[in-house]
Amino acid sequence: MIKSPLQKARSKYIPKLPKSLEENVALITGEASEAIADKAAIKQMFPNTYGLPLVTFEAGDISENQILNVGVVLSGGQAPGGHNVISGLFDRLKKLNNRNQLFGFIGGPDGLLNNSFIDLHSEIVSEYRNTGGFDIIGSGRTKIEDEASYDKVIANCLKNNINALVIVGGDDSNTNACVLAEYFQEKKAGIQVIGCPKTIDGDLKNSFIETSFGFDTACKVYSELIGNIQRDANSAKKYWHFIKLMGRSASHISLECALKTQPNIAIISEEIEKYKLTLNKIVGQIAEVVKKRANKGENFGTVLIPEGLVEFMPSIKKLISELNDILASKPEYNKLPTSQEKRDFITGLLSEESAKVYSSLPDSFAKQLTLDRDPHGNVQVSKIETEKLLIDMVTDRLDKDQSFHGKFNAQNHFFGYEGRCAAPSNFDADYCYSLGCTAALLINSGKTGYMAFIKNTSGNSDKWLAGGVPITMMMNMERRNGHEKPVIQKALVDLKGNPFLMFRSKRKEWATNSDYIYPGPIQYFGPSEVCDAPSETLLLEQESSFQDELVTV
Amino acid sequence: MIKSPLQKARSKYIPKLPKSLEENVALITGEASEAIADKAAIKQMFPNTYGLPLVTFEAGDISENQILNVGVVLSGGQAPGGHNVISGLFDRLKKLNNRNQLFGFIGGPDGLLNNSFIDLHSEIVSEYRNTGGFDIIGSGRTKIEDEASYDKVIANCLKNNINALVIVGGDDSNTNACVLAEYFQEKKAGIQVIGCPKTIDGDLKNSFIETSFGFDTACKVYSELIGNIQRDANSAKKYWHFIKLMGRSASHISLECALKTQPNIAIISEEIEKYKLTLNKIVGQIAEVVKKRANKGENFGTVLIPEGLVEFMPSIKKLISELNDILASKPEYNKLPTSQEKRDFITGLLSEESAKVYSSLPDSFAKQLTLDRDPHGNVQVSKIETEKLLIDMVTDRLDKDQSFHGKFNAQNHFFGYEGRCAAPSNFDADYCYSLGCTAALLINSGKTGYMAFIKNTSGNSDKWLAGGVPITMMMNMERRNGHEKPVIQKALVDLKGNPFLMFRSKRKEWATNSDYIYPGPIQYFGPSEVCDAPSETLLLEQESSFQDELVTV
Repeated sequence: MIKSPLQKARSKYIPKLPKSLEENVALITGEASEAIADKAAIKQMFPNTYGLPLVTFEAGDISENQILNVGVVLSGGQAPGGHNVISGLFDRLKKLNNRNQLFGFIGGPDGLLNNSFIDLHSEIVSEYRNTGGFDIIGSGRTKIEDEASYDKVIANCLKNNINALVIVGGDDSNTNACVLAEYFQEKKAGIQVIGCPKTIDGDLKNSFIETSFGFDTACKVYSELIGNIQRDANSAKKYWHFIKLMGRSASHISLECALKTQPNIAIISEEIEKYKLTLNKIVGQIAEVVKKRANKGENFGTVLIPEGLVEFMPSIKKLISELNDILASKPEYNKLPTSQEKRDFITGLLSEESAKVYSSLPDSFAKQLTLDRDPHGNVQVSKIETEKLLIDMVTDRLDKDQSFHGKFNAQNHFFGYEGRCAAPSNFDADYCYSLGCTAALLINSGKTGYMAFIKNTSGNSDKWLAGGVPITMMMNMERRNGHEKPVIQKALVDLKGNPFLMFRSKRKEWATNSDYIYPGPIQYFGPSEVCDAPSETLLLEQESSFQDELVTV
Repeated sequence: MIKSPLQKARSKYIPKLPKSLEENVALITGEASEAIADKAAIKQMFPNTYGLPLVTFEAGDISENQILNVGVVLSGGQAPGGHNVISGLFDRLKKLNNRNQLFGFIGGPDGLLNNSFIDLHSEIVSEYRNTGGFDIIGSGRTKIEDEASYDKVIANCLKNNINALVIVGGDDSNTNACVLAEYFQEKKAGIQVIGCPKTIDGDLKNSFIETSFGFDTACKVYSELIGNIQRDANSAKKYWHFIKLMGRSASHISLECALKTQPNIAIISEEIEKYKLTLNKIVGQIAEVVKKRANKGENFGTVLIPEGLVEFMPSIKKLISELNDILASKPEYNKLPTSQEKRDFITGLLSEESAKVYSSLPDSFAKQLTLDRDPHGNVQVSKIETEKLLIDMVTDRLDKDQSFHGKFNAQNHFFGYEGRCAAPSNFDADYCYSLGCTAALLINSGKTGYMAFIKNTSGNSDKWLAGGVPITMMMNMERRNGHEKPVIQKALVDLKGNPFLMFRSKRKEWATNSDYIYPGPIQYFGPSEVCDAPSETLLLEQESSFQDELVTV
């Protein structure tokens, strides 16, 4: 591997740890915990891992435990900082006892099932310190969901003398980690399971997990690009840029990027859902801003669009669901010769409301809704080019608007893969390293079914607080594929939270003015105010005057 | 304007100047110059500005001239560093004589015609030091091409007592600057014109102009993103990423980004043209690499695609030209009800060769070629989604290939606007500031029809050489819109040049291996090897052992 000059220089960075973790620690045990909702049901499903106490670490002197052989798994989409979780885990294991060992399962949960792993020794780990990506061992999306698989994991761990697993993943992977922990306890398998909160989407968040790792870095990369595009828009003064941002259902990324860059418009899906805004209404609101700016002679601007938007517009959601049924049950559709006939055929089968929505869609988008289906017969929402749809519909709206005398030319962008594997910001490098270290300490304390946490992360890392939260404590029951399941509650954007309220208080000005901020690229070596700032979301959430509103759980 | 922390910190950066420009200078006059080709024709068209001597500046002591009132114009697409050309120009004018003044014409050449300008005083200039974008005065693409317009410019300059113009632009804008200089001399208007070499595309380049400003920064931004995507590909191991890069006709950007990131495939249009490669051949070559990697179990990779590719494939170029004619002459086409009928109609009118190409194209792309036309009836090549076309065709090819047993899933990207207004790298910040300073010195020396240049730019800025090259010296005659015109020769990628040869010597390895480099984002504050390196293209072009091959003029 040829390393870039930045990579070489960055490899020397020593991530900051909470002061309490710098030397030996003592475990402080809190009160017994409860699930945030559906307590009885969750208690019943997790008899061995329910009600565990919250634990924290303070500087102290606990003795080392038995020799630890730990396996680590990276699960799901990449997020900046995964390699630092591993280096923090490795360093702490070695500090606890030089005979402790760390193994990395290859390609995500598949590695656990196939017994495919590597010894993560010092030289390998050193190659990956402070780098982006999950390429040290790869990741995967396989779910381990049945007893046969659980038993296979037990057999593979025992074969290799592995007595603890660290699962690095999002809400689903951590839910799964807890299921494994419970099963291993029930079977007295002697294998602990600790989770780490990962996802750029920012939707694994509650009063203990202040942020998921990767969110900070990914948003900084997207904001760099949005800022550059805004500077271009403000220089050329001839394009509206419609920018779709990754982030699955929740709009945390769009909100964070909006707070960082002050675009003319940022759509927040959670608000769309709350006020049941239709596609036409959204198009109308965008067109109004375009007109207002055109009246000032400014035929340019920026619109941020969360990837998950279509799922939050009730009418489109309903339409998609009806389309799924029609396409699954009417194979004759595919034999119709022309797109018009296809469209007419479908319109005839839709409910009145959906037919109206469907007929309002431009051809290209209507086609997308009916063509791109996944193997389960579902529309792949992430492939729907919402940014192009909005451009088409706004164009159409303005064409028909006699009172619009400006120009509307638009460019579309989609940012996702650009940020998931960036080298972690100082925040994520420190946060991840601390999480890894905490995971090692939780294992050393004999804990299982816990997620490592670091709190007070908006302030100086000296004062960060490390500990473990029982995963069951973050759970509630939700309907998934027709069944009630215990899952970690997903955090959507809180419309009463400081980040959204701050955005809402400013957006009117941002819409008509060109109040753009140009954050520039992530810096690793400059002044602290440039390199070390956490996300705007975190700063606003932890503003003490609003503490009461912070807890989203 | 709210400034980001990086912007604030970066505003304090003092751009490096060539040692020779640090204090007072003396003008060194070289031999009379000649045009690179078509000498007689160009001499005839530029009787007043042809054959001027090359000039350079050395440390010395020349006396100040009359008071200078200078107007600056930003012309064409944005490029990182434009604001530093202005600050270098401003600072040197003030150093020469504190009563000198700088005015900025608003919105590009339009400002000259409309007499729309602002006084670029110290406070304004300071706000924009080391920032990206052209928003200090805006830019525009209007061409000043007839005598009435020339006279208007003279009248506006005289009205405002402006005795020199600095035109910051690409090859066309600088050609135009020379036409203005010639006209002003002929009319004894007393207005000097100096050009500055700007364009991210990198195609304004010759033995004097080693690089155009903005190329370095833009390529660094694109390479950051390509690197991040490659790390993602190498972690998730499930996608091929097809990445189209801005850069108009020439493939300098793709080549530079390839040298920086080592993708599996990078297409260089100039090579496609030289070997007359068809679209099918290109698709076949990509499919071969996909297969080779699949055989190693690696169902992922990256492909860099220059924006101008379609123009370099002879068969597509011919097809587009025939389509232009058909669509202009057959309005009945638009009335045909179905896309199939439209396609059949066109096929019937194409030459046999073009009909064959046309029928090989996927529907969506065929439709793009016939739908998206500019006001002059031409296909807008920049809007053709070559990256999607290639994905579709490679998918199709592999579907039909019995010997392919891998998976091929692809994502497409297009990077352009993301890099044009980034804050300039140290290289561009220094280079642009030095160009602006040099432009001031050329004006002070009474020169007109010159382009400011800085040479030896691959080495330490101490040893950079500053001077002026007569614009006529870089000209030849070219056919444009049916007329022979004197223009600055555009530099395409030199297939015998070091950058391409280096790429060619490595690409076989890069194709099958995953030799990705991850450059990371531009750094402004770190170690010199991270922050100050010029482009790979420049370094390779100036490697002394290959000096003879460097001169592209």
